This record gives sequence, structure tokens and C-alpha cells, in this order.
Amino acid sequence: MMMGDDVENGNLGPYLDRPRTFPNMRSKPYTPLIFRILRGINVRVLVILLFLGFGYVFYIGISEAIRDGAEGFFKTQYGTISKMAVLLALVILSIYLFRNTTPQQESSGLGRATSACITVAAFLLGALCSGVAGYVGMWVSVRANVRVSSAARRSAREALQVIAVRAGGFSALVVVGMAVIGIAILYATFYVWLGVDSPGSMKVTDLPLLLVGYGFGASFVALFAQLGGGIYTKAADVGADLVGKVEQGIPEDDPRNPAVIADLVGDNVGDCAARGADLFESIAAEIISAMILGGTMAQHCKIEDPSGFILFPLVVHSFDLVVSSIGILSIRGTRDSNVKVPLEDPMTILQKGYSVTIILAVLTFFGSTRWLLYTEQAPSAWLNFSLCGLVGIITAYVFVWITKYYTDYKHEPVRTLALSSSTGHGTNIIAGVSLGLESTAIPVLVISVSIISAFWLGHTSGLVDETGSPTGGLFGTAVATMGMLSTAAYILTMDMFGPIADNAGGIVEMSQQPESVREITDVLDAVGNTTKATTKGFAIGSAALASFLLFSAYMDEVSSFAREPFKQVDIAIPEVFIGGLLGSMLIFLFSAWACAAVGRTAQEVVKEVRRQFIERPGIMDYKEKPDYGRCVAIVASSSLREMIKPGALAIVSPIVVGFLFRVLGHYTGHPLLGAKVVAALLMFATVSGILMALFLNTAGGAWDNAKKFIETGALGGKGSESHKAAITGDTVGDPFKDTVGPSLHVLIKMLATITLVMAPVFL
Amino acid sequence: MMMGDDVENGNLGPYLDRPRTFPNMRSKPYTPLIFRILRGINVRVLVILLFLGFGYVFYIGISEAIRDGAEGFFKTQYGTISKMAVLLALVILSIYLFRNTTPQQESSGLGRATSACITVAAFLLGALCSGVAGYVGMWVSVRANVRVSSAARRSAREALQVIAVRAGGFSALVVVGMAVIGIAILYATFYVWLGVDSPGSMKVTDLPLLLVGYGFGASFVALFAQLGGGIYTKAADVGADLVGKVEQGIPEDDPRNPAVIADLVGDNVGDCAARGADLFESIAAEIISAMILGGTMAQHCKIEDPSGFILFPLVVHSFDLVVSSIGILSIRGTRDSNVKVPLEDPMTILQKGYSVTIILAVLTFFGSTRWLLYTEQAPSAWLNFSLCGLVGIITAYVFVWITKYYTDYKHEPVRTLALSSSTGHGTNIIAGVSLGLESTAIPVLVISVSIISAFWLGHTSGLVDETGSPTGGLFGTAVATMGMLSTAAYILTMDMFGPIADNAGGIVEMSQQPESVREITDVLDAVGNTTKATTKGFAIGSAALASFLLFSAYMDEVSSFAREPFKQVDIAIPEVFIGGLLGSMLIFLFSAWACAAVGRTAQEVVKEVRRQFIERPGIMDYKEKPDYGRCVAIVASSSLREMIKPGALAIVSPIVVGFLFRVLGHYTGHPLLGAKVVAALLMFATVSGILMALFLNTAGGAWDNAKKFIETGALGGKGSESHKAAITGDTVGDPFKDTVGPSLHVLIKMLATITLVMAPVFL
Repeated sequence: MMMGDDVENGNLGPYLDRPRTFPNMRSKPYTPLIFRILRGINVRVLVILLFLGFGYVFYIGISEAIRDGAEGFFKTQYGTISKMAVLLALVILSIYLFRNTTPQQESSGLGRATSACITVAAFLLGALCSGVAGYVGMWVSVRANVRVSSAARRSAREALQVIAVRAGGFSALVVVGMAVIGIAILYATFYVWLGVDSPGSMKVTDLPLLLVGYGFGASFVALFAQLGGGIYTKAADVGADLVGKVEQGIPEDDPRNPAVIADLVGDNVGDCAARGADLFESIAAEIISAMILGGTMAQHCKIEDPSGFILFPLVVHSFDLVVSSIGILSIRGTRDSNVKVPLEDPMTILQKGYSVTIILAVLTFFGSTRWLLYTEQAPSAWLNFSLCGLVGIITAYVFVWITKYYTDYKHEPVRTLALSSSTGHGTNIIAGVSLGLESTAIPVLVISVSIISAFWLGHTSGLVDETGSPTGGLFGTAVATMGMLSTAAYILTMDMFGPIADNAGGIVEMSQQPESVREITDVLDAVGNTTKATTKGFAIGSAALASFLLFSAYMDEVSSFAREPFKQVDIAIPEVFIGGLLGSMLIFLFSAWACAAVGRTAQEVVKEVRRQFIERPGIMDYKEKPDYGRCVAIVASSSLREMIKPGALAIVSPIVVGFLFRVLGHYTGHPLLGAKVVAALLMFATVSGILMALFLNTAGGAWDNAKKFIETGALGGKGSESHKAAITGDTVGDPFKDTVGPSLHVLIKMLATITLVMAPVFL
Repeated sequence: MMMGDDVENGNLGPYLDRPRTFPNMRSKPYTPLIFRILRGINVRVLVILLFLGFGYVFYIGISEAIRDGAEGFFKTQYGTISKMAVLLALVILSIYLFRNTTPQQESSGLGRATSACITVAAFLLGALCSGVAGYVGMWVSVRANVRVSSAARRSAREALQVIAVRAGGFSALVVVGMAVIGIAILYATFYVWLGVDSPGSMKVTDLPLLLVGYGFGASFVALFAQLGGGIYTKAADVGADLVGKVEQGIPEDDPRNPAVIADLVGDNVGDCAARGADLFESIAAEIISAMILGGTMAQHCKIEDPSGFILFPLVVHSFDLVVSSIGILSIRGTRDSNVKVPLEDPMTILQKGYSVTIILAVLTFFGSTRWLLYTEQAPSAWLNFSLCGLVGIITAYVFVWITKYYTDYKHEPVRTLALSSSTGHGTNIIAGVSLGLESTAIPVLVISVSIISAFWLGHTSGLVDETGSPTGGLFGTAVATMGMLSTAAYILTMDMFGPIADNAGGIVEMSQQPESVREITDVLDAVGNTTKATTKGFAIGSAALASFLLFSAYMDEVSSFAREPFKQVDIAIPEVFIGGLLGSMLIFLFSAWACAAVGRTAQEVVKEVRRQFIERPGIMDYKEKPDYGRCVAIVASSSLREMIKPGALAIVSPIVVGFLFRVLGHYTGHPLLGAKVVAALLMFATVSGILMALFLNTAGGAWDNAKKFIETGALGGKGSESHKAAITGDTVGDPFKDTVGPSLHVLIKMLATITLVMAPVFL
């Protein structure tokens, strides 16, 4: 409540004031003052948010078991991840110490050792920030769900609005804020330290390339966070359901189920922590790639003051924080405890807030393009770029809408899926697979149209390079990506809302509160399922666009290392085609291993739960307490073990493939073969990854909601044969939508950043 | 028996004599005599085979219901297909009448009208041959299964060897023979008619390009045959099982099940007819693309006598007929009726035959390369090319072995899958999906290694073009493809064996013969499942290689239409990348629609069967006869309706995408944009299609055999909870492995041939 009040009382004012501070930037573009201001603002925001957060601690109730489980797992998991990160940092260090330098580095007097240190430092900072983002997500979540469940006793409106949305909003703002601050600090540090733009040192347009390590660090941690968390949450969920719901016939989240705490812990570590890290690295990767492209373009076009183009992404995301905060605040709590007032559909409320955010985002986006991207050379370029932004915003909206169409039981597809459950488990699975596969079509068409239109808007913006040929195309797609992510904080809020509501429902069930309370949390839970699915659609759409930008950054990077142009990835060359084939295969194999990891861990849980039911017959009559801790321990250790194999595959494959083909190219007289093969691997993996992730996310969400639809009483309702078939679908969908699908979002971007950082290996 | 005897008595002698007739070819390479001889031989073979076939009719017993159902459906289906083919022929005709001509055509005096007629005629002939190939497969199958079931009463050995293998072998030889004969006739006709190689007319090296229509016709018919047949067979199977096995608890193929006849009909139309058409078009497409590449290369290298390079594929496949016949004959029937002799594992017997075939194939392949590919210019080139062939043969063997590893319950993966059934329906599906996804990895690595090594063997063969740069690389991959397909007839035999054995089991069950007979047919059925899965692995491997060749043919074709070089497909261009994205999406959408078609049709069957059980309660006590005909009619009409949507998608998408981007390219000043986008679409679709088909085929086969493993008594055996979960997996796997997977094989090649034929639309 405190947070809500503070926010309403205007403590978020600094955000709103911010635009007024920016004009300074344009008048003195080359002084580090900009960054001091940026840093100043962002630190202020951080302090406010942290202050709000600490207030929280003393206010809300706790559910110690869940918190301990989540934090315990988090510590062990991040312990493992940080060891791997340090190892990888050493590998990067040694590669950069023995690689060639680029002409840019030489002209700026940047030695091998310095550039190695910069990359490694950026990598470690990115990894650290990504970890903190995940921790914040989980930290808020484990504290909020108890509050939601107790608020639900008073009023659904309060439960929804005041706690779940605002708690989600809090984490979302921290995550987005951290991405912006981290990059701003890094940028400012390098700027000051390297004396950028003073004679004989680095040009400002080359600076963003130094940040790629940050993006790689962020996606590295996000990948393992998502894998470990995803395996944890779904193994516990599937294991708990299979024995509890199916074999013993006790309800979901029943305290007699020994795996119930593990399941609730999983929601926090899997959904909140992992998705926080996921969106954090989405934003970081997108900002960095857009800065690189902006810098490159500004240099080619000989724009006098390139900082507008370079800093544009940071400004867009600062506005994102503002407009999303307003969107979150627009969801007003009336704080009446009159439960008789008919409940407004929570989904409608959330979507109203989304509409507010989108309208504001469009306005601020137009403003920022006019302000930062106006150049005398091409006076109407800013207008083209704001249209690119609009394309991105529309793409985001359409993505959210399509996913909702395919996963909400108000619409045809999920109802057809539910109907297919009435003919058995098998037809339910066939229908779900087919629904998921079909759901890839429209998003792909939308992405295609937006890439092409943004590219052409940029291309025709009037910006031309030295030779007079139009050159703004790629930057146009970059701006579209920024447009898409310009409401990221609000989207992340909706995403965080899901697991908080889910967990609240679990706590209600465990503490055996009245049925009416459970009903309220059930409604919230169903809405949470849809928002989780839609935000996954959003995440994959933005990943697709961001990866497209990172390709270009990769090709620029390779060509500056190799000192020869690298403009084409020709898949008519057999080796390059093979690279593509391997890239697509990588996606399939990664999915297989992640899926199998959930299956294996779930089987361990099933065995343990069955053992406890047999050895402690008193559990079913509430006479004996189940051993929750053992299930938590089993899931934790197993998911930590299982996350290594797919994660290592993702990191090692591009490096090995690139190196092998580099050697092959060397002996067969093909220069750049390794780099070309890796580019094809990257592009094919991206395409297959997008499709596979869309398929898995949508199928999983649809199965879940088909089950929920039947539970509303349709087709025989709870306990009918249709319901049993629908539960099978839900079980299958769980690892699809919460482990493999989201891991693929991260994987796509991790591949793009790892190839950028490892480029010297392929040459 | 008659066929077997004839073959044993040496009536296949003409095949063996053939090599001796070929030296004529080399001494008088330019006379049409060669073709007269070729035609002569092949007609002789056909006559012999037809004679054997007719003998069969009078000998074997019949199962009228199945035969009538299968032939009735076949007639209606092919009626629909032929109408579509005629429509498409008109479209092609009009496109070719209004397109530009190529320089080759002009120099040979080939007018628009002539070239349009040639393409359309080739298309229609290809379609006709493909249809006949399917009909032969089905015709033999519906007659053989009754014989197998009655033979099983006497001896498993006889059932396996004398009937199932030889019947399969008969169809296989006819199918492969027809592909060879059709192309040979077409080639000879064009050769004579156009006066090839006489002054002022067409060069022999340009001739193969006229054959592409044949490949497209073959794959067009195969696609619809596979789709319609696949939907039919699996909808009937799933529908029959869901009500019969799961709800009513009656055994598989029980005569009380109203859908049982539809199910047995399905095995014939879906597996035998469709797979016949599938392999027919594989071979046709591969021969044509290899002939095109051979011709192009011979021309570039200025080889004096190019016919060796052009006719090489036809010769390889003639040898295929010989060595496969010997392989089939090596499976000897002892014809004893002593059932007490311990039964040799039928799989071992089949594999022994395969080893014989492979060894002979290697020998004849080395012989043919020395004989036809020897050229003074590069004396050791033939050796390199025979090594390419060896690469192909090894690839085929490894593919068969890998699929067997993943789908046979003697190995780890299927046992793990069976074990996961013990924790429920959900974990069974998760494990199966993960197994299928994982099984894509090794085949992709194998394909990658073989493409690269064959390419490099060809590249270093010593053949150089006018400018002195090595040019044999692509022909090397072509030769590897031929090597892979050099045992196609034997592989197809193993494939046909499966449905025949399956159907025989069905007839045994329906006619309520003793349990011991059913046991024998069950063993054969399980072996049939594995051989069906392995041959699908083979089909997808050869499709991958053949598509790779067709890319190059497409690029050659475009560059001769456009009169400018078309050597690169650069996916760093946004539009081209989008083309790739759309191509991969096409695979997902096609799979979705094919899968949904099975689901919807199966639901209709379920409703009908349930209705019959309710309205005719006497069925369960054998007092009333179920209305088999109604189920057959429902499945037939529904699958004909359902095959249109995915089929039309596959045909229309590349044309629409190519045309749209051609227009876009025209307005944005990008020449060849349409053709480039289509090339990317083709390559991405091929990669995604290969992976998706591998996934679906293997997962389906593994689920089926996991169920069979449990039925042997493992993990609780028949009727246990594990068994129920395994049945769910099997139900899901059915459309995966018998509808969508095989349709994807055909789709990949259909896309490659349609783009070749429709190339003028994209320019």
C-alpha cells in the first residue's frame, strides 16, 4: 500500500520532470555532464524504488517456507551461474589478449589489454545486473503473494489492483531502470575514461561496440536463470500434479501434497526471477544493438552531432519508465470492501491500463524522434523514424492481441481445443499441437511486414552515406524495435502479475481459507495465464526484431576485425547452408534437452511424493506432516544439474562450429568462411527459434486455459473424462510454455551476443 | 510364389545382361539408338513384371471389403487430384505462353508454344506415372495381405519371406522401374523430336531442363496422395482405437468395431499407395536434378561426350533394380511348415538382405562411375565421384541405423520412453516430444558431413571450367544423392512390408483365427513398424540431398530466364531474410493444418462409432453387424475435403510470395528480388521441413514401439496404467508419423520443383 500511496502522491515525479532536463543534452552534446545527469536521475529513481521496497518488507506478511525455498535456490543457482560466468570471463579475456585489433582500436590507441579488460568488465557487469534484476523480481514476488491472498479475503479489486499489479509494476520498473542505468553508467565511464572524441582517441560512434560484453553477460545469466528456474518450476508443478491431482485425487496446492511448497517456490524462481532476467536482457540487447547501428549510421552519413542517434534508445526507455508508471497508476484501487459490487473483468482493467500506456508511448515517441533524430541533412527523417516507431508499437499490440486470441478461452481456438478433450487424451494433444503450430503464422506475417516497412521507412528517410546511397534502413528497424519495447515496463508488469496471482491462490488453498476467496484468486490466476502468454508473444516478437539488429552488428564487427567488407551471407554456398542447417538443429536439440530435463526431474519428484504417501499413510488424514523440504531439495539439486547440458550446448555450439569452419576455410582457401557459417547458423537458429518458441508458448497457454475452461463447468466440468484429458494437455504444456519456450527467447539473443563477442575466434 | 519363382529362374536376366549392352552408348553417343535400347529393356521389364502381377491375381485370395474400400477411395481421390492437375496444367500453359524465352531456347529455335507444351506434357506424364505408382503399391498390397495372413497359419517364415517381402519387392521394383522408364522415354522422345545436337538445335546438355515438369507432376500427385491417404489412414486408426480400444475395451482390429474396415483400408491407401508415390517422386526428382547438374557441368567443363554425365543417374537406378532384386531374392523361403523351429528374428533377415544389396550397390556404383564418368580431362575424377557415391551409401546406412536406434525397443530411447509412461499420460508425451526433437541431431550432422565431403570430393576431382576453376562440387553432391538412392528399391520393399504385415494382422484378428497366428503377425507388425520408421529416415535424408540439388537447378534456371548471373542468396538483405522466415513458417502452418485435418476427421469417426454402439447395442454381442460402409464413406469424404487446404497452401504460397516480392522489387529497383526471396523461402523451408519431419517420424515411431514394448509384458503389460499412457502416445504419434511427417518429405521436394517450373513468375 505504501508503494501505491507513494507513487500516487507523486513520488514518481522525477520521471515526469525528466524530459525538461534533456534539452541540456543537445546544447552540450560532448560533455560528460549528460551522463552525470542521466546517472543522477537514475540513481534517484533507484533510491526511491529501493526505499519503497524496504518499506514493503516491514509491512507485508511473509510465507517463510516459500521465501526460504526460493531464496535458497536462488543463492545456489546464482552461485553456480557466477562460477560459470567467471570461467567464461577468463576465456573471453584470453581470446581478446591474443586476437587482432581493429583499425578503430588502433586509431584510438586502445591496446589489446585495455580492450580485453573492457569487454570482460562489461560482461561481468551485465551478468551482475541481470542477476540483480532476477533477484528483484523474485524478492518482490515472494513478499507480494501473501499480501494478495490476504487482500483477496477483503476484495478482489484490492487484491488485483493494489497488490498484484503494483508489486509487478515495482519489479518491472526496477528491471527496466537497471537496464537503462547499467548501460548509461558503462557508456559514461568509457566516455570519460577513454577521452572519447578528443583528438587521437576513440570516436563517439565507435563507443557502443564496447558495450556488447554487457549484452552478452546479461543474456548469459538470463539463459541459465530461465533454464534452471524453468526446470525447477515445471518439474515441481508436473510432479505435484501427477501424484496429487491425478493419482490421489486431492486438489491443486493441497497442503497434504509433499511437493506443494516446491511448486509454489517454483512459481517465484521460475516465473518471476527468470522472466525478470529475460526482459532485462531483451532491453539491454536491444538498446546496445540500436546504439551500435545508430553510431554506424551517423558515421556513414557524416552527421555532425551523432549523440542524438546514439543516445536515442536510452531516452526511449527512460520514457518507457514514465509512461508505464502512468499506465500502472491508471489502474485505480477504490479500496472498498464491498464484495457485492459485480467484479469488473480483471483482464479488461489490465487492458485499459495498456491502452493508456500505448497512447502515451506513441506521443512521447514522436516527441523524442523530433528532438533527437532531427538533422539538417534530412529534415524529414525524424518523421520517417517516428513512423518506424509506430510500426513497432502496432506490432507489439498485434502480437499481444494474437496471443490472446489463441490462448484465451473466450475465443474459438481454445474452445475447439477443449472440445477435442471430450474424445480423449490423444485428440487433445493432437489438437493442441496443431493449434500451437498454426499460431505461428500470423505473428510471422506481422514481423515480416513490420521489418520490411520499417526498413523502407528508414531507407527513404533521406539519410544518405558518402556515396549518396540511402542508408537509414537498418536504423529504421532498430527504431521499430524500440517502438515495440517502448511499453516494456507495462508488459513486464502484466507478466509479473501472473505468478503473483498464481502463488496467492496456492497460499489461499494451503491455508484452507473459504471457497469464496479461492474463487477470487482463481479468476486472477486465469487472467494471469493469459497475460503471461501474451507477454511471451511480446517477448518473442521483440527478440525477433532485436536479433535482426544484432546480425548487422555482428557483420560490422567481423568486417572491422577482418579489415575487409563482410556484407553477404550467401546460403547457396554449401558450407554456409550447412551452418544454417546446424543452427536450426541447435534449436531442436536445445528444446529436446530442456524438455527432457523437466521430464526427468518431474519423475524424481513423482517417486519421492509416492514414497512419502506410502511411508507416511497419515498424510492423507492430516495426521502426519509431509516432508516438504525433501521435495524442495530434490527439485533444486536436480534442476541445477539439468540446466548445465542445454546451456552448455547453446554456448559451445556456435563457437565450435565457427572455429571448425574457420579452420576448414583456411585449408580450402575460403577467407571468412567461419564467420559466414556462424552468421547463417545465427539466422537460421533465430528463425527456427522464433517459430518453435511461438509454437511452444501458445500451445502451452492454450492447453492450460482449455483445462480452465472445462473447470468452469463446460463439457462435463471438473472430474469428467474431458477434464482428465485436459489435465494431460496442461501437463504437457507446462514445460512447453514455462521452460522451453521462454528459454528459447533468451537463447536467440544469447546466440546473437555470443557471436558478437566471440567474433575474433571465427576469423 | 509365381513371381518369386520367375525371378529365381532368371527371368530378371535382362537386368543382368544390361551392362553388356551399354558400351554401344559410348561408341555412338549421339544416336537415339541408346534410348531405343533403354526403352526396349525397360518395356521388357515392365511386361515381365505386369505378367507376374497378373499371375498373382488368379492365385491369391481376396478380402473384398478392404479392396473395394481402398479402390473406391483411390478412384475418388485420384479423380479429385487429376482435376486439380488439369487446372494446374492450364495455369502452367498460360504462364509459359506469356513468359520470356531463355537464350538456350532461342538458339535451339524452341518457340514459346513448343516449350509450353513440353512443360505441360511432362507435368501431366509425371502426374500420371506418380498416380500409377501409387495404384500399383495399393493394388499389390490389398491382394498380398490376405495371403500373408493365411500363410501365417502355416509358417511365419513363409508369411514373412514368400509373401510380404516379395509383394513389397514387386511394388518397389515397379515404382522404381517406372520412374526410370518414364524419364528415359521422355528424354528419348525430346531427343529425337527436337533433333538434339544437330546444328542449330538444342544442345544435349540443355535437354534435362525440359524434364522438370515431370518432376513437378510427380511431386504434385505424391503430395495429395500422401495427404489424402495419410489423413484417411490415421483418422480411421485413431477413431477406431479411441472408441474401440479405449472406451469399449475391445481389441485392435476387432470385427465388432464399425471403423475396423476403414482402418484396414487406410493402411493400404495411406501407407502403400502414398509411400509408393512418395518414393517414386523422390527418385524422379533426384534423377532429373542430377541430369541437369551433370549437363551443366559437362557444358562448363567442355567435356567432349556429355552423355555419360547426363545418363549416369538412369544407369545407377537400373542397377538399383538389379541389386535390390538380388537383395530381395537373398531372403530365401525354406517353405517348411515346421513351426517348432525357433523363429529367426524377421528384422535380422531383412537386414541381411539389406547388407547384400548395399555391398552389390557399392560394387556396381564403382563400375558405373568408371564406365560413364571417366574423362580424359580429369583421369581420376571418376574415382572421386565413386567416393561421393560411397558417401551417399554410407549416409543411407547411417540414417537407417539411427532411426532404428531411436525407434526400436531394443535400444535405450524407446525403453526410457516406455518407462516415462509409468508416471502418466503427460510425462509420456513430454518424453516422446523430447525424444523426437533430440533425434534430429545426428541425422543433421550426418547430412552436413556428407554434403560437405561430397562437395569437396567433387570439387577436387580435377574437373575445371573455362576459367580453370574447379567446378565438380555440386555434381559430387548429386552423385552422393544417387549413391544414397542406389538401394531405393530394397528400401521401398522394406517399407511396403510394414503395412502388408499390419493388414495381415488385422485380417487374422477379424477372421478370429487362433491366438498363435496373431502372435506371428504381431511379430511381423512390430518389425514392420521399425522398417517403416527407418525407411522414412531414408526418405528424408534423400529428400534433403535432392532438394540441395534442386536449389542449384533453380538458380541456373532463373539465371537463364533473367539473362543475368544469379549466384547468391544473401540473407543479410531484409526481404530475403523475410522470405526465409516465411518458408519456415510455411512448414509449421502446413504441419498444423495436416495435423488438425486428422484430428477433425478422427472426431467424426469417433462420433459415428459411438452412435453405432448406442443405436445397435447388439454389436457387442456379435448379434448385429456394424455398418462398416458408413465409416468408410465418412472417412473418405472427410479426408478428401481436408487434404485440399494444406495442399493448396503448399502450392500457392511460394507462387504468391515470389510474385509479391517481384512486384516490390520492381518498384524499389531491386532486380531478381522475387527470385531471391523464393530461393530463401525454399532453403529455409527445406531445413525446417527436414527437422520437423525427422522429429514427427521418429517421435511417432518411438511412441508406437513403446506401446508395443509394454504389450510384451514390460512395466505392467497390457491393460496397466502405463499401457493406457502408452496408447495416448501412440494415438498422438499416428498422425505425426503417417500423415504429417511423410507429407513433409513430399512437400520439400514439391516446393523445389514448383519453384523450378514457376520460375518465370518471379522474374
